Amino acid sequence: MTYNDLLDARFSNLQLPDAPASLYDPIRYTIALGGKRIRPKLVCLACALNGGQAVEAVDAGVAVELLHNFTLIHDDIMDNADTRRGQPTVYRKWSSSIAILSGDALFTVSIATLSAYASHPAFPEMNRVFLDGILKVCEGQAFDMEFESRTDVTLDEYLTMIELKTSVLLQKGMELGAMVAGADDDDIRITGHVGLKAGLAFQIQDDLMDAIADPKKFGKKVCGDIREGKKTFLTLALLEVCTAEERDYVMGILQQKSADDADVKRMLELYAQYGIFDRANGEIRRLYDEAMTLLAHFPESSARHEIIALLNQLMHRES
Amino acid sequence: MTYNDLLDARFSNLQLPDAPASLYDPIRYTIALGGKRIRPKLVCLACALNGGQAVEAVDAGVAVELLHNFTLIHDDIMDNADTRRGQPTVYRKWSSSIAILSGDALFTVSIATLSAYASHPAFPEMNRVFLDGILKVCEGQAFDMEFESRTDVTLDEYLTMIELKTSVLLQKGMELGAMVAGADDDDIRITGHVGLKAGLAFQIQDDLMDAIADPKKFGKKVCGDIREGKKTFLTLALLEVCTAEERDYVMGILQQKSADDADVKRMLELYAQYGIFDRANGEIRRLYDEAMTLLAHFPESSARHEIIALLNQLMHRES
Repeated sequence: MTYNDLLDARFSNLQLPDAPASLYDPIRYTIALGGKRIRPKLVCLACALNGGQAVEAVDAGVAVELLHNFTLIHDDIMDNADTRRGQPTVYRKWSSSIAILSGDALFTVSIATLSAYASHPAFPEMNRVFLDGILKVCEGQAFDMEFESRTDVTLDEYLTMIELKTSVLLQKGMELGAMVAGADDDDIRITGHVGLKAGLAFQIQDDLMDAIADPKKFGKKVCGDIREGKKTFLTLALLEVCTAEERDYVMGILQQKSADDADVKRMLELYAQYGIFDRANGEIRRLYDEAMTLLAHFPESSARHEIIALLNQLMHRES
Repeated sequence: MTYNDLLDARFSNLQLPDAPASLYDPIRYTIALGGKRIRPKLVCLACALNGGQAVEAVDAGVAVELLHNFTLIHDDIMDNADTRRGQPTVYRKWSSSIAILSGDALFTVSIATLSAYASHPAFPEMNRVFLDGILKVCEGQAFDMEFESRTDVTLDEYLTMIELKTSVLLQKGMELGAMVAGADDDDIRITGHVGLKAGLAFQIQDDLMDAIADPKKFGKKVCGDIREGKKTFLTLALLEVCTAEERDYVMGILQQKSADDADVKRMLELYAQYGIFDRANGEIRRLYDEAMTLLAHFPESSARHEIIALLNQLMHRES
């Protein structure tokens, strides 16, 4: 079986006890919601990029994907999110107590999945890297929540936050893949940075797509970030260059959290006027090019091709 | 320094980053609330019981105590608890979002603390045992919450629940101490069972003390469990032997969750009439004796003395 088949098999047949149902049913439900499974694929490919077999890193990929799903369960409580992938979130379908606890259990299961490498010489270091990643994800989420009530968040702070909250897990995941392959410290670091740069590019692209995606293909309402008054790459980049008067207006949008169609139109005009879309596109392109340069460090291989294809596919996604 | 001094030093000087403050301040606050630190002491003594130095197991003890504190932060949200050790709970002092997230971070820090043994031959197994313990604690909490809405919980189910929720962590903690000392599988298992039996005894004693403690020494209001309609060893043992009519009355107390003084008096009379206090005392004694028998398996040592002294002190506590 290919690593992709193995990943599918693992996610469609999680080995979990039946009872207590209130602990394990929400975990089964969350995993069954699916997702693009980008993270576990990149973990496996990172292993192959470093001369290992992609299938060897399947457990590391599963661990990273389960960890990601744990963060979603807890984040959805903190964000009062009603739906996730078109279905009710765990805390809405059950309760916040059940979401807290089943999240904790999924967190434990994800770390325990790494124990598949218990006899691997790099196991203690893999464990350390994974835990370091989790703590950074928590830090990112904490900064994100702190930023909500702050009015002086800078673009640089925002970039640090999204790096912690979303890119670090891709970085650590790809590092784990390289470690499974027995790569040396330099190659592990470079492999991880491919994930870090790509993760940052995708996050900025998320912010950009929210504003300029084709409404027919986007899958959710465009400009939701503006309507909800979210601080994004676009708003924070705009605040750095606009006039004091415009700044007051934008801050009002961020604070009232219920912008109407006229406000959305005005915000899009400001973005265009100040070249914010170009700035975001430039930043995405720069990060993408950095990821490609890092990949060029590794010898030509089908894994390298597959990683590039996956990154290209993500760069040209429409939803 | 003794293991006790080292434990004190570690808890009074946790090495945590300053920012994000919303993530790390609640952790510092929780640890500063203190507690009896029974768990880390028993972890260190379990190491010495098996021929190691108690100080070698300090990191394992710290990991177990941090894990325990993480569970308190999350449990307090689920239980809507206002105070913990006389101070506001994290979720009351900050918010439930902050309590969820700082709990997750403390969870991570506790597991990462075990990495101090990364070069110990038993490290992968220590890691596995610790994670297995965490998952069981989650299962215990899930059963506890499921029991709240069930009307057919048996005493046996209750005993399984408290074993998972509170005793397993003492068991796994003492196993870790034995593993640090390089004990063989049999000795690890027996050491763990000392903690398991003692933990069960303490939990049943908690239930008993709530009903019969000296109000002047108890530190909180006696019979709080009856007033709050909690299912305990006492209520569930009573339900197994009382008449159908009394059963209806007791179930009413459990469901209304606001028993008055007359109800408290009636419940205490029922306990006395059916010998429930004797049954609880007998069970505590039996578990305590089992723990002592298990301890007798190990050669005479100051660690064995200290463990016995600690257990005796807990058996004769008044609050």
